[in-house]
Amino acid sequence: MDTVILSDWLAARLDRGAAEPVYRQTLRLMQQAILTGQLPPGTKLPSSRTLAQDLGIARNTVLHVYDQLTAEGYVISTTGSGTYVADTRPDTAAMNTRRKPAVVAVAAADSHGQSATRIPQPPKRDLGDLSTRGRRLIGQAGVSAKQWGAFMPGVPDVAEFPARTWSRLQARLWKEANPDLLTYAPGGGYRPLRRALSDYLRVARSVNCTPDQIIITTGIHQSIDLAVRLLTDVGDRAWVEEPCYWGVRSVLQSSGVTLVPVPVDDEGLNPREQDLQQPPRLALVTPSHQYPLGMVMSLARRRTLLEYARQHNVWIIEDDYDSEFRYGSRPLASLQGLDDAGQVIYVGSLGKMLFPGLRMGYMIAPEHLVDTFRTGLAELYREGQLMQQAVMTEFIMDGHLTSHVRRMRALYGERRQILIDAITARFGSELPVMGDEAGLHLVLGLPDHANDRAVTVAASEAGVIVRPLASYYTTDPPPRRGLLLGYACVPNDRIGPAFETLARVIEQTALKTPTRAA
Amino acid sequence: MDTVILSDWLAARLDRGAAEPVYRQTLRLMQQAILTGQLPPGTKLPSSRTLAQDLGIARNTVLHVYDQLTAEGYVISTTGSGTYVADTRPDTAAMNTRRKPAVVAVAAADSHGQSATRIPQPPKRDLGDLSTRGRRLIGQAGVSAKQWGAFMPGVPDVAEFPARTWSRLQARLWKEANPDLLTYAPGGGYRPLRRALSDYLRVARSVNCTPDQIIITTGIHQSIDLAVRLLTDVGDRAWVEEPCYWGVRSVLQSSGVTLVPVPVDDEGLNPREQDLQQPPRLALVTPSHQYPLGMVMSLARRRTLLEYARQHNVWIIEDDYDSEFRYGSRPLASLQGLDDAGQVIYVGSLGKMLFPGLRMGYMIAPEHLVDTFRTGLAELYREGQLMQQAVMTEFIMDGHLTSHVRRMRALYGERRQILIDAITARFGSELPVMGDEAGLHLVLGLPDHANDRAVTVAASEAGVIVRPLASYYTTDPPPRRGLLLGYACVPNDRIGPAFETLARVIEQTALKTPTRAA
Repeated sequence: MDTVILSDWLAARLDRGAAEPVYRQTLRLMQQAILTGQLPPGTKLPSSRTLAQDLGIARNTVLHVYDQLTAEGYVISTTGSGTYVADTRPDTAAMNTRRKPAVVAVAAADSHGQSATRIPQPPKRDLGDLSTRGRRLIGQAGVSAKQWGAFMPGVPDVAEFPARTWSRLQARLWKEANPDLLTYAPGGGYRPLRRALSDYLRVARSVNCTPDQIIITTGIHQSIDLAVRLLTDVGDRAWVEEPCYWGVRSVLQSSGVTLVPVPVDDEGLNPREQDLQQPPRLALVTPSHQYPLGMVMSLARRRTLLEYARQHNVWIIEDDYDSEFRYGSRPLASLQGLDDAGQVIYVGSLGKMLFPGLRMGYMIAPEHLVDTFRTGLAELYREGQLMQQAVMTEFIMDGHLTSHVRRMRALYGERRQILIDAITARFGSELPVMGDEAGLHLVLGLPDHANDRAVTVAASEAGVIVRPLASYYTTDPPPRRGLLLGYACVPNDRIGPAFETLARVIEQTALKTPTRAA
Repeated sequence: MDTVILSDWLAARLDRGAAEPVYRQTLRLMQQAILTGQLPPGTKLPSSRTLAQDLGIARNTVLHVYDQLTAEGYVISTTGSGTYVADTRPDTAAMNTRRKPAVVAVAAADSHGQSATRIPQPPKRDLGDLSTRGRRLIGQAGVSAKQWGAFMPGVPDVAEFPARTWSRLQARLWKEANPDLLTYAPGGGYRPLRRALSDYLRVARSVNCTPDQIIITTGIHQSIDLAVRLLTDVGDRAWVEEPCYWGVRSVLQSSGVTLVPVPVDDEGLNPREQDLQQPPRLALVTPSHQYPLGMVMSLARRRTLLEYARQHNVWIIEDDYDSEFRYGSRPLASLQGLDDAGQVIYVGSLGKMLFPGLRMGYMIAPEHLVDTFRTGLAELYREGQLMQQAVMTEFIMDGHLTSHVRRMRALYGERRQILIDAITARFGSELPVMGDEAGLHLVLGLPDHANDRAVTVAASEAGVIVRPLASYYTTDPPPRRGLLLGYACVPNDRIGPAFETLARVIEQTALKTPTRAA
């Protein structure tokens, strides 16, 4: 492209009616011409005066374009002798090791000013481009695009959150806007919040800790991730309950930990002989309310697990899932409160109590690891959100947390009962209900021959969200079939009709006797 | 302990003046007696009436305690025949594989009601309990306990943040409190924010993307972590610049990636022959402003890197660090904008522009990986914070982001000049200044014989925060010595005095000619 053609080529492309200023258009077009090789290295550019005249634009504009092209390394300006296109072509000599055939053709513009560039199509990439762990993560992803509605499990009713109260506290704190609360939070979180939480957890969960031991995180996922990265190496074994929360599996696996699914029975985690013979590095348990089946780990099992962990140097992560929402007796004391060897890391969430979007949780580190966990969290995540933590502190100190949880426990208790009544009315005792003593969901058992994944798909087509129990097991086919039904986020009067729809789907897809060979 | 002794033992320990209610004290003491074996399995408890009389408390209180002990599995109640201590001792038979000598002695109380329990001290745990990667993470942690003051690098002046404006927008949104914004955020973030950001980045950074390609994260750390877990496997090689940001090294290493430090020169990343011969899986670069040295990657290098990546299937993560704060010419266009093979993942942060505690950043995924990245983020982190994202959207749309960045650029530019003037006045050209064209810090070069880590410690004792250049290198001793000085968060009138203090430290610890052998 000689200089005459450059002017023509630019003139044909500049759009004076466009929102993009002429300066930007000219710059962009010239960059494009250089990158595609239409203006090859060494080409002398017309003087700014000439180009401005040819294009009918201000000379200043062209000067700015040339300046910017120089600054960005597209062209080289030599005082006196003009402006030349720089050689910015990829240094192929630097790449000729293990080289595949070159795919870039530096193309010349034809004399009509049309680009003859044929940049080959980039190779199509697909899931095959992910790493092995990336493919596994995506392949088994349990996360749902919907976060609301009958019967989404694990979601509180955010419409019931006292947003006005929260907003008032928030406005008061932002009025002062203490700069110390706008920086990173390297010390494990806002100290008054850690004090308030340790008071709360001591009473509510028989947890035994000082405020220093509490570390504020963005939730269960981050807490577990941090513990795993600090306490395990790639290839280390971790016990997880079978079944368990899919998110836990994803977090552990993506850090290179080998999962060992351990069965649960009515007393909770029940390791087999072969499990015991190979002590893991880490055991992840939900003793107060097994997720998703709901059984409570017995005191004898708790003490056995703690003793085994002490003898074999096993770290225990205690996920105290949904323990705030119990509809019967008080929960058992936490494992953490029974631990006197400093081997239990207790993790909990505030989002389920208030609203999930809050992204706030906590972990309780053993005393000798507090500094390590704080440093690790800051190093891996550079935490912040102290303002939000300060709002949360006021919310707790003013009693709003306790009263909100109390109100929600009553409300969710009602909804749970409406759902159980609907199940009983429809199916009698044909389908068992499990795990309904606590939490935000229950499990509706299905016959062994039923395909709970297929029921889930059919239910979704009928407008009802459920989760198949199968997706919480690692074994395939899973030992039990069932559906997780979240009732907490469903308005009372929607529960009956939505369950009616689901019941029809269940009858059509799960209760038919399996076809026998004719 | 027979029942008479139980009453005595409890009576001696109950404190009627304590804040803890008598019910809780009694419950706690009895749990303790059972756990320590002072009340051995099979012991029959006194009737509630007897114990209440002995202790002089309400019978109802004792009944509640017994109920709770039953619910928690400490005791077993048999109708008619009374209440017995359950056997909750650890099931040592279940643990006798690879067993060490038992360390728990089930102790009996002596007849004075005093505990004879001698629970052995738990084994002391130290850093040796961390995993190898955990020890490395903590051992090389670069995070600082202080987040503010002269000359903390990488921190904006949060006191200048327009908190009132933010608070006003926030109050308006919370007044409506749309429940959809209180749930998890599985779709990559608040869509209007992604649209606003794609518009902003197209203009400001020559980025080429649709709103769909933008994924909101909590910042650079999370963005890189996600990409690494999806695109690399344990043991994969990743190029990092030498020197580079310590946080990046920590994130990569803790995911099991092997770091390959690649030198930089005045044109940015400059791989050696041996680097090129072993293509990595991933390359992490800071082309617009090398961190921490500040050089700009030349256009030729950019194109070479892209071409090499295309030929050898290398993923590129482009960290566009601090590019909003440039004090000279416009930055070069982003690598992302030059990429037509879908191999560049662009990551950026909003915290440095506004306030770090915000914890908000973004990544731009190649189009064919958008769904994968969204799913991966939701699966690993269960993101939320849509309310805050909505506030940010309003902040951008109303023009506050642009005007705040413009104002800060002017302010930081002043501070940078004050610091440079102070350096020149004191040291002339004896100590070089590097990387001052952009960002929130500059690098003050020290002589090769100086120990920049020692200077940092001495400066800290004198009340001035700096970071040694050595901590950004993986090689030891590092090829260059220097100090990172952050000026952005230091009020104008504090810069001179703080630098005076630092200069004295430098003269005493770094400018003395190294001692020669006598």
